[in-house]
Amino acid sequence: MAGSHNFDVKAFPLETYVREAAARVEAALARSVAEPAGPSGRLFEAMRYSLLAGGKRLRPVLAIAACEAVGGSVESVMGFACAIEMIHTYSLIHDDLPCMDDDDLRRGRPTNHKVYGEAIATLAGDGLLTDAFRVVASSSPKVSAGVLLQTVIDLADAAGSDGMAGGQVIDLLGEGRVLELKELEVLHRKKTGALFIASVVCGARLGGATEKQLESMRQYGQALGLAFQVADDLLDVESNAEDLGKRTQKDEARGKATYPSLLGIEQSHQLARELASKAHAALADFDHRADPLRALASFAVERKV
Amino acid sequence: MAGSHNFDVKAFPLETYVREAAARVEAALARSVAEPAGPSGRLFEAMRYSLLAGGKRLRPVLAIAACEAVGGSVESVMGFACAIEMIHTYSLIHDDLPCMDDDDLRRGRPTNHKVYGEAIATLAGDGLLTDAFRVVASSSPKVSAGVLLQTVIDLADAAGSDGMAGGQVIDLLGEGRVLELKELEVLHRKKTGALFIASVVCGARLGGATEKQLESMRQYGQALGLAFQVADDLLDVESNAEDLGKRTQKDEARGKATYPSLLGIEQSHQLARELASKAHAALADFDHRADPLRALASFAVERKV
Repeated sequence: MAGSHNFDVKAFPLETYVREAAARVEAALARSVAEPAGPSGRLFEAMRYSLLAGGKRLRPVLAIAACEAVGGSVESVMGFACAIEMIHTYSLIHDDLPCMDDDDLRRGRPTNHKVYGEAIATLAGDGLLTDAFRVVASSSPKVSAGVLLQTVIDLADAAGSDGMAGGQVIDLLGEGRVLELKELEVLHRKKTGALFIASVVCGARLGGATEKQLESMRQYGQALGLAFQVADDLLDVESNAEDLGKRTQKDEARGKATYPSLLGIEQSHQLARELASKAHAALADFDHRADPLRALASFAVERKV
Repeated sequence: MAGSHNFDVKAFPLETYVREAAARVEAALARSVAEPAGPSGRLFEAMRYSLLAGGKRLRPVLAIAACEAVGGSVESVMGFACAIEMIHTYSLIHDDLPCMDDDDLRRGRPTNHKVYGEAIATLAGDGLLTDAFRVVASSSPKVSAGVLLQTVIDLADAAGSDGMAGGQVIDLLGEGRVLELKELEVLHRKKTGALFIASVVCGARLGGATEKQLESMRQYGQALGLAFQVADDLLDVESNAEDLGKRTQKDEARGKATYPSLLGIEQSHQLARELASKAHAALADFDHRADPLRALASFAVERKV
């Protein structure tokens, strides 16, 4: 690894770090969406059903880790951390709908529309997406309005038509035909990569990062997002539903292109490792406060779930 | 009418004012959503299909009129004007989906999902909603970041789980049973009223309004939004599909509560007129620059389409 700071991935207590950061996120998420009461109570119930269903909280943890890597405080980033998880959750609810991927199971539980019906599930997604912008914009009195406004812009860019929503369209239209490797990269860059990049770039900006640090975070996020995707594809092939809490080998069943299907399993593992190295290299100029980000890059390609 | 300014509704060229303001909005909207190109081209096509399908552009025109009423310039408000129409359009696309109102016709044309399928229509709505926040947040270099940030918050509040999305849930869950008048008011305050209020409050704030002026705009928007709703209900009963470009008397067919069904037709007309008067009264302290808003309040209850 480049840089003067020595990082020993085995010595870093990633599990503890993630557990503690995720616990803070859980508490803040529960406050971000109202308790079910009043005439719209059913909507809040559906929103909370998916938002508070556990999950790795990877994007909020990345945002917190990026903020801390540049010396920022958790308070500055928590609103954004919640917002990005709300947006991630909305995308899962809509992706699971019968007209999209038609999934019955998510994180080991029935999907939102299986419990609340399609109409409420659609609106629960809409509500989470919309409320996410309220949460980020009204979050941090310590952060300048200019920085919060740029966070809103980056978040909308990452999630919108040129980001995640656009990626989902490419994914839908690509089913049934074999995408080429270049197309698969564009798909993942938009569908999942953009939100990963926003997590660390906005997290760092909210922590007071310099322009140079933001560029490093952009490179880190890009490599990390793709590393997670390649590893996800590999897990889909190599794991079973019990471990993952969702249906596996569904990519193949749908004729979806994946890294293993295009590159083979061994070369996909190799690519994932290269991407993790790239992520590490992007952090060369950061000190020990970036160790959580380094450990997450290693975890991305070594995880079993 | 209260106030020292004399306003003659018959003398005000509302049609010209609305046509010119709407034309500026059309041009800005076309620039707000990319041309269909690249792998996500189909998404942009679907977004543009509904966004650029005409329509009264009532909310953007209200925003512009509110901005001008306090002496602001159109440039300051145009990004927000586009954003609120994008959010209105997203809500129409999702409301028309088979799992919601299941409508085939909107503004005289097939609904979005009839042309693009349910998956793309859902994502076109998601894309418009998300991109709206990019458009408003990155719109106006002349406006302070603090004011733009407050605009983001108000917009998200009006459209989110405690606003429009929450209202749609009340609407869905209320079908098949008779709502009481109080419930109907809560429904409309959330489902359509919140976005009307945001149109004029944010429009005025972007134009440099004082706190007192913002409060007047809030009262104006509340009365106007409900006036439009009562008038809409009356049009649904009294008009035919050819005039409106959508199916009529569908409220009754679905067993939905409306003002005419709860109050009768004559009393509903009376209520609409009272609401228009309230809207006029809220503008008592404004000069002639608020005449477009005054004319719109009169139009709300006198229109035939």
